[in-house]
Amino acid sequence: MSNSDTICALATAPGGALGIIRISGPNAVGIAGSVCCGITATTPANTIHFTRLIDGNEVVDEAMVSVFKAPHSYTGEDSVEISCHGSRYILNKVLELLIQKGCRMAQPGEFTKRAYLNGKMDLSQAEAVADLIASTNRASHQMAMSQLRGHFSSELKVLREQLLKLTSLLELELDFSDHEDLEFADRTELKALSESIDNHITRLARSFENGQALKQGIPVAIVGKTNVGKSTLLNRLLHEDRAIVSDIHGTTRDTIEDTIDLHGVTFRFIDTAGIRQTTDQIEQIGIDRTYQAIDKARIVLWLIDELPSKEEIQDMTARTQGRTLLPIHTKTDLRPQCCDHIAALAPVLSISAKTGQGIAQLEEAIYHSANIPTLTDADTIVTNARHYDALQRAHASLQRVLDGMAQRLSGDLLAEDLRLALDQLAEITGTKITPNEVLGNIFRHFCVGK
Amino acid sequence: MSNSDTICALATAPGGALGIIRISGPNAVGIAGSVCCGITATTPANTIHFTRLIDGNEVVDEAMVSVFKAPHSYTGEDSVEISCHGSRYILNKVLELLIQKGCRMAQPGEFTKRAYLNGKMDLSQAEAVADLIASTNRASHQMAMSQLRGHFSSELKVLREQLLKLTSLLELELDFSDHEDLEFADRTELKALSESIDNHITRLARSFENGQALKQGIPVAIVGKTNVGKSTLLNRLLHEDRAIVSDIHGTTRDTIEDTIDLHGVTFRFIDTAGIRQTTDQIEQIGIDRTYQAIDKARIVLWLIDELPSKEEIQDMTARTQGRTLLPIHTKTDLRPQCCDHIAALAPVLSISAKTGQGIAQLEEAIYHSANIPTLTDADTIVTNARHYDALQRAHASLQRVLDGMAQRLSGDLLAEDLRLALDQLAEITGTKITPNEVLGNIFRHFCVGK
Repeated sequence: MSNSDTICALATAPGGALGIIRISGPNAVGIAGSVCCGITATTPANTIHFTRLIDGNEVVDEAMVSVFKAPHSYTGEDSVEISCHGSRYILNKVLELLIQKGCRMAQPGEFTKRAYLNGKMDLSQAEAVADLIASTNRASHQMAMSQLRGHFSSELKVLREQLLKLTSLLELELDFSDHEDLEFADRTELKALSESIDNHITRLARSFENGQALKQGIPVAIVGKTNVGKSTLLNRLLHEDRAIVSDIHGTTRDTIEDTIDLHGVTFRFIDTAGIRQTTDQIEQIGIDRTYQAIDKARIVLWLIDELPSKEEIQDMTARTQGRTLLPIHTKTDLRPQCCDHIAALAPVLSISAKTGQGIAQLEEAIYHSANIPTLTDADTIVTNARHYDALQRAHASLQRVLDGMAQRLSGDLLAEDLRLALDQLAEITGTKITPNEVLGNIFRHFCVGK
Repeated sequence: MSNSDTICALATAPGGALGIIRISGPNAVGIAGSVCCGITATTPANTIHFTRLIDGNEVVDEAMVSVFKAPHSYTGEDSVEISCHGSRYILNKVLELLIQKGCRMAQPGEFTKRAYLNGKMDLSQAEAVADLIASTNRASHQMAMSQLRGHFSSELKVLREQLLKLTSLLELELDFSDHEDLEFADRTELKALSESIDNHITRLARSFENGQALKQGIPVAIVGKTNVGKSTLLNRLLHEDRAIVSDIHGTTRDTIEDTIDLHGVTFRFIDTAGIRQTTDQIEQIGIDRTYQAIDKARIVLWLIDELPSKEEIQDMTARTQGRTLLPIHTKTDLRPQCCDHIAALAPVLSISAKTGQGIAQLEEAIYHSANIPTLTDADTIVTNARHYDALQRAHASLQRVLDGMAQRLSGDLLAEDLRLALDQLAEITGTKITPNEVLGNIFRHFCVGK
């Protein structure tokens, strides 16, 4: 992509009282000046102006116009933000005028892409911007914000430095391999360092499952026999949460999904439409649907209103392997006596979806079942499949390094996989690794001198 | 309404890359400062800051924050605008924090209401803000912009000054009525002035019909026998226009309505769904639907593909009284010979909706039939029903003044209706007329002296 052209785009959703049009590129201020009265090339940076937007003699709008100059802007280029009235007509008209005067309509994400290309942020930070905008709960928001603020990048930087140190040690081993009087680098130290790096990479990669769950919502299945109260429970769980968002004027949900937020974590009820319908279906279809829901779930709420048989308990235990099974005694309002012996399987919660009794405790149980790391935790959680893929490949590379060490392979053979691991981590931040950097690192750390 | 509290609201539609949260009121800067790092009571006016939005130790977002100080802001109060990422979570969180710190959620239009209460604009200008945001075509946009920029207010100001002059002349007549040596005000001059004011008010009131049509779209009916090509023509007319809006990324129409824009004026096809269905209905239902469509229309496109009988022509002429009837010979591709004698009724257009032949000419004919005053015209077009109502009442008051003059009623009886007319016009701009103003005007204009 050439970044010598000037781009413009609507940065807000259309339909509000106000709208923001963004312009970025070498001619941003000049082009803006031909539409915004009083803005000229000499307008100082970081200033905001109340001005008229004009099309020849016609006033299109009165607007607030902010001017930023390279490199002190989001994109690192000269930039202008026009905050005008949110009428479709005005927004379209202003974009039309800007394009007439020489702007190009921006591609999706192009402002952030330019910010990356101009060194304002790395790739993972750029990706965090998209995640941040898409975030709908505290967990996904915090992960995106942490990544945007560079916490993941810093961690990758530490890993890269350690890998560079490892590479440098091996390069040193190579360079001086013809000097027989020189002691070779200590392979024990190299192995320990490799293992430590690999452990760190593995920990990051493992966080991906949690990251995905936090980003997309943790899948929960509500299963149980017909008429046990699944729909009533779901409605009860859903009902109490929705109010938070709808309290705030002007916000509506794009998609109505069966989700609840507990302590900032979203739980997503899977295939619940199907489950809800089971009450009108013959038993077998209900059972098939139940199995499908369990397969997709991380947490299974098993609703029971009478003592399950040993076979039923065995069957459910087998079916929910690798998932958290929460047996729930429903309709306590109707049948207060508890079916005790199922408690051998797991602690049984008693609820009445009708009266709300036990619902708060159930919500706590659902939240704790998810076993989500504390959100204030400094540990990075990987949420991006691209990052996960790169981490997995870096882990494989390091495994080959460790295998090579076990087989006492020479440094030049190990170095290749180390460089691969470096490149794979660099893919995440989009940082370019050059052999010069590797060389530079040798001299800096080892100070061979002379 | 007390305006001593500080209000906040989301000013953009949720769902974009960016969102703007507006704060206004005496504590705007202080409250913003408790959420936006680095913003304090001493932050200078008209400055823009890149800062973090925080909830305790947690970073909610990185945002651009603009600070304005009373009276130099939209509302005339201290104001802050936060331009942050458009995530629902972030927008809701920031609003939640602002409310925690002492803001109140703003009512619809409350920022503009405060702008009016603080004398930043008059009522008609405030109303224009809402019209501007709602504007979807050039005509409605220009009318709203003209009103926002105070053209209507200036015209009302002139009218008010003339009414005040009239009132002053009558007051003078009253004050000095016991001085028998003083010549009474010249009633001929008073009558001419009253008539001139009334003509102006009537002209404004009459513009309302055009204003409404321009604002809501001019209703057009497409009528004609089954299979004459109504749907084909409608599709042809609709097809060519939609592309303009959909060209611009991110804009979608809220409601899909059968409208076309011609030279910035919207034409709305009424009840076309019904008309379209007539092809599947028996003839009588088709005729009933046609009559209903004509009743609602300002322009009637009468599609014919064979010579109508004299009775049919008479019937259609009678039915479309007070509307513009455009007879259109369709399917020129099939039947190139024109049915001439209908030309006595109106010039007949020939089109082929299939090939597109004659469509451009038809669009011109539709536009000119609407008889819309040129949009660059300096004449104000009234678009607001409240204004129309006030103008109508002011006109009635002035008619009573003129009747009173014809009956040679005394000045004090006329003055009452004049004051009513003044109040009625003042309703439009929300300006308060006090008797002091009337008095003040006497001394200023007449310089009684001594």
